[in-house]
Formats: sequence, structure tokens, C-alpha cells
Amino acid sequence: MTARVDTAEVAAALRLAPGPVRLADLATDTTPGFDGSKEDGRKALADLGGPLADRQERLFAEGISGGQRSILLVLQGMDTSGKGGTLRSTVGLVDPQGLRITSFKAPTAEERKHDFLWRVANALPSVGLIGVFDRSHYEDVLIARVRKLADEAEIERRYEAINAFEAEQAASGTTIIKCMLHISPEKQRERLFKRLDNPEKHWKYNPADLDERALWPAYHEAYEIALERTSTEAVPWHVVPADRKWYRNLAVGALLHDALVRLDPQWPVAVFDVATERQRLVEERPL
Amino acid sequence: MTARVDTAEVAAALRLAPGPVRLADLATDTTPGFDGSKEDGRKALADLGGPLADRQERLFAEGISGGQRSILLVLQGMDTSGKGGTLRSTVGLVDPQGLRITSFKAPTAEERKHDFLWRVANALPSVGLIGVFDRSHYEDVLIARVRKLADEAEIERRYEAINAFEAEQAASGTTIIKCMLHISPEKQRERLFKRLDNPEKHWKYNPADLDERALWPAYHEAYEIALERTSTEAVPWHVVPADRKWYRNLAVGALLHDALVRLDPQWPVAVFDVATERQRLVEERPL
Repeated sequence: MTARVDTAEVAAALRLAPGPVRLADLATDTTPGFDGSKEDGRKALADLGGPLADRQERLFAEGISGGQRSILLVLQGMDTSGKGGTLRSTVGLVDPQGLRITSFKAPTAEERKHDFLWRVANALPSVGLIGVFDRSHYEDVLIARVRKLADEAEIERRYEAINAFEAEQAASGTTIIKCMLHISPEKQRERLFKRLDNPEKHWKYNPADLDERALWPAYHEAYEIALERTSTEAVPWHVVPADRKWYRNLAVGALLHDALVRLDPQWPVAVFDVATERQRLVEERPL
Repeated sequence: MTARVDTAEVAAALRLAPGPVRLADLATDTTPGFDGSKEDGRKALADLGGPLADRQERLFAEGISGGQRSILLVLQGMDTSGKGGTLRSTVGLVDPQGLRITSFKAPTAEERKHDFLWRVANALPSVGLIGVFDRSHYEDVLIARVRKLADEAEIERRYEAINAFEAEQAASGTTIIKCMLHISPEKQRERLFKRLDNPEKHWKYNPADLDERALWPAYHEAYEIALERTSTEAVPWHVVPADRKWYRNLAVGALLHDALVRLDPQWPVAVFDVATERQRLVEERPL
């Protein structure tokens, strides 16, 4: 029991092993890599805020000073799995100036005129930033597969296109952290009832959500195929048990922190002579 | 002495009166509208976090549900006046999904091919969002005036163009909050020394900053003209004493909160029949 989190341990525990994926075999209510309570978990995330913000600022400074690195956090998951909550509670811990958040909806008419990766490429973080995708190009092999929005050959082509695209981004300096927020159908049911029973949450509910929910097995099959086909050595998937909000928030924070620790950005060295500048300021004429 | 802040009172106290502006007559180290200590002020800002986040979420929900309103916070100020710090400490209190932050630098080659308002128009917040400009179109009548980047007739034209542009945005649903973070030259000097004396801050320092500092009186004159010419009934300026970081952060939070209170966004009413949806979920077939 501890209020400290070993972020490397959480990252290792959540990293998807190569090979076929069976989501039914992956628990949605466990807390891999962390043996504390809910209270411990919340405390651990709060305590992670400082280190996260510090390392994020170093990455930002590095980007200002000629660095070429960035981070991209990809959040996927069934409806109510908590993509928005993770953004608020975990991503919200860092300086908003260092973030570029994109929420992907159904493609616009303009977006449909381009390859499916076009809008995603336009939303990539600049150097020094942490980009966050709330949904992503994975919808193009998830809902697209379930709802037959593209034919089989096209869906097949997309897995390879995604791998090539992500490999290119990784090679050019973007650390991509892919998270599937994994909830049980029972938890989704509970959360949908909560949305219906609270007038302050009605705006989050759409009758079409239940139509999508009815396709749960087809979505999970699409996820299983996508996870297997696109979890690579350079850009692996993480399956985050997300029935417990506190663990989901902590886990994504741990993944972000672990990535920042590995990047280990350093404060840029002055490209000017500090003593000279100090002297200029000491000797300045009255304003 | 109080740890609560009356945000309407702060907003009223900071709102620039019509007529000529003399920045030398406006204190940089006072705390208009708030009579508490630094500790009280920090507590008051922390306590404002919940109400700010709540109202921001309502605005966001309204935007999702057909609303047409948004907020734009414009932050201007001399170097080291704390635009970045305000973003981190105050703007960072709300859900990052509800923000659109743009940091304006020297115009790119592409931007220079357009009217000065082009890049600003492209950066306006969508409905439901809080946009934040770290520097803005005001640079086009500030540094542009001081450094003679445009001729006098063009600068003159810009005040009117800005007023027309902002009036149009205000009329179409964007509440614009304009803040000049007002520091003394002595405070800037102190902060520049701090940047020089701390290797972790060297990336924030640029020798050109001292060249700009030497033009302090010319910048203040340009500010005075801009404030007078562009502070309108619909879109007034606020001059925020910014020598004390805690007050600056609190004051901008108060201005944001006051604007949200006036907008008074409400949770959207369900556009579906709640009982029907509940029943669908109760009767659903096993997944």
C-alpha cells in the first residue's frame, strides 16, 4: 500500500503483449502496477502533478530551443470509457500552453475528400508539445469496420497505413502513447443510466449511443483486430482497466510521466553570454 | 480581509474608464477590488477553480447543443508581465478541452501575405470554447508603432479595423475580455535578473529583450494610444496591476468568472425523451 506510483511499473504492466488479443481476458476493474486504495491513487496522481508539469515544461523549453521531440497521447475507448474525464483530470495537470488537444468527430465533408490520415496529420503536435487525440485515426478501423463505412480491402490497407504513419512519426521524434480505456459493458450501462438520471449530463447523451452499444461484440472484435495489428515495438498499445476512474486517471498520468522520464528533456543551455547580459542590465540607462 | 473574491467588484475596478490613458498614473502593485493578503488571494483563486470549471463546462455544453457563444481572453503586456504565468495558473484551472490557446509570435511569411487580422480571425474560439490569445492583434499597433513596421496611416487605420472586428465578434456571441498586464520597469528588471540568474530560466531570455526594454517609454506611449482608441463600451480594456503575481492571477480569474456569470450558461435541455431512453436501456437484449 502506497501513495506513490512507480510509473515505469504501471507502464510495463499495461503494455500490450504481442500476439492475438482477447479483451474478455483483460480485466476492466484491476489496478495493474499499483497496489494502493482509491484514496492512495488520487493522492498519487495529485503528487504526480508537479513532476509531470516540470518535465512537460522542459520538453516545451527544448522545443523552443531547437529540439525536435514531442509526445502524442492517443485515447480510444467505448462510449463512457472516460476519454473526456482523463483529459480533465490527468491531462489538465500540465500547463495548457504545452498541449494540443484534438477531438475527432465524424469526418467533415472536407475531411472525407482526403485520405483518412490527412486530418490526423494536421493535428499532430508541434515540437515541444504534448498532443492529445480524443478518438483518432483508429475510428477508421473501428466504427468503419463495424458500420462498414469502407470495404474490407480498404480496412485491411489501413492497418498497414497506420503502422507506417506512426513509425514515421516515432522516427522523427514523436513518442506516441496509445491507450485503450477498457470498460465492461455493465459499467457502461451504469454510466449511461447516470447520464439519463442527471439533467446536467443530458447533453452528453445521444440516443444513437444505445445503437452503438448494441454492437458491443462487433466493436470489441474490431478493437481486438486493431490492437493486434497495430501494436508495434516502437508504438505499442496500452490497455487501461477503466472501470475505476481513479485508476484510469492515474494510469494515463503514469504513462505520460513514464514517457517524459524516458525522453528526459533538459533545460536548454543559454545561447547568449550570461555575464554580458547581466552587465548590460546592471549598466542600463534610466528608462 | 477575506479569502473570497467578489469577481464583479474586481472586474468593475479594473475596467478602464473612457478617455485618455496615463499608465504612469495607474499603479502596478495594488490589488483593486480585493483587500486580502497574498495568502488570501491564492486561496480565493483556488476556491474560484470549481465555479470557473463548472460554468466553463456549461458554456461548452451549450456550444455542443446549438449555442453560439464563446469567450476570448486577450492577454497583452510588456515582456515578463506574466502572460505565460497567468495561462498556467489561472487558465489552467479549467478543463483543457474547453480551451483554445494561441500564442502569437512575429508573423510568418504566409501571415504577412494577409491583412493583420487574418491570423487572428483564424484563431478565434469556436462556440462553447474559451479562446486565449497570448499577445494578439494589438502587437500590430504596439511593436508595429514602436518599431515602425507599418506607416502612420496604416497604424491609424488599424485602430478602427480592430474596433470593427471586435464589435462584430461581440455582436455574434463572443465575449472579449482584454487585459493589459501592467508592471513597473523596476519589476521587469528584477524578473530579467531572475531569468539570467537561474539556468532553468535561460530559455526564456533573449538578448533582444533588453533592446525592447530600452524602448519602454515608446511602448507605454503606444499602449496608451491603443488603450484609449480601442477600449469600447462593448469591448473594454482592463488594466491589471501585475507586479504581484498572486493578484494578477486572481484578477484574470475574476474577469473570466465575471464574464461567465454574466453569460450564465445553462445545462442544455434533453432533445430526446428521457423516459423512453431509460426504458430502452432497461429492456436491452444481453450483449
